[in-house]
Amino acid sequence: MIIGIDHVGIAVKNLEKTLSLHRDILGLEVKRDIMNIEDQKMRNALIKVGNSSFEIMEPTDPASAVAKYIEAKGEGVQHISLKVDNIEETITILKEKGIVFTSERPLQYGSAKVIFAHPKSTGGILFEFCERAE
Amino acid sequence: MIIGIDHVGIAVKNLEKTLSLHRDILGLEVKRDIMNIEDQKMRNALIKVGNSSFEIMEPTDPASAVAKYIEAKGEGVQHISLKVDNIEETITILKEKGIVFTSERPLQYGSAKVIFAHPKSTGGILFEFCERAE
Repeated sequence: MIIGIDHVGIAVKNLEKTLSLHRDILGLEVKRDIMNIEDQKMRNALIKVGNSSFEIMEPTDPASAVAKYIEAKGEGVQHISLKVDNIEETITILKEKGIVFTSERPLQYGSAKVIFAHPKSTGGILFEFCERAE
Repeated sequence: MIIGIDHVGIAVKNLEKTLSLHRDILGLEVKRDIMNIEDQKMRNALIKVGNSSFEIMEPTDPASAVAKYIEAKGEGVQHISLKVDNIEETITILKEKGIVFTSERPLQYGSAKVIFAHPKSTGGILFEFCERAE
């Protein structure tokens, strides 16, 4: 069901500064440069870390989930994305075990289907489940 | 230098409950069962997630780093451990680039050498660097 950590989502106040930290100081590779993600009211970029990634996210609107996270907890890991082989099957199995999802169906982002579990049902951690057509 | 995400360190109030969530609900494999880590005033367990792991940590003393994290931010990701091929070289390179470490030398845990960077020099995220003899 779960194959690995797809990515770790990090909420930051300054995307350019964090991107520079990861690229110029930690020496990591930028997998996908800064993009505006209109529907989530944020800008993000992807950093390659071995088989996994960091998604660096900066809010563009105080009403966004990322802005609310930073307001409540400060900058840090806002979500962990778990790569699954079959998202429909994962949703069915986890629903039976009491996991509550934040949407009825997975959302499509490019070649990925993703869904979030409600952190109240996963011990306070916001888990995303992600299936990629690769 | 950095090979991948070695593990993600998750601070929790109830280790048994979180372990059950990861094992019985998410279906993940327990890589190493609960152990008391005297010098860090916590108990932890390791969960296998593909090539990476979750380190689930429960404080055993209110003066511990894990307890302080939970007090300040609530349960969540306390650190991200980056696997490196050569920790001495990593420390030298990162020090030159202005990263401040919380100890002078790496600490040895079993077959792993680890060192933490001060979060003030890494944009608020607590990064651990970890070299494993495998």
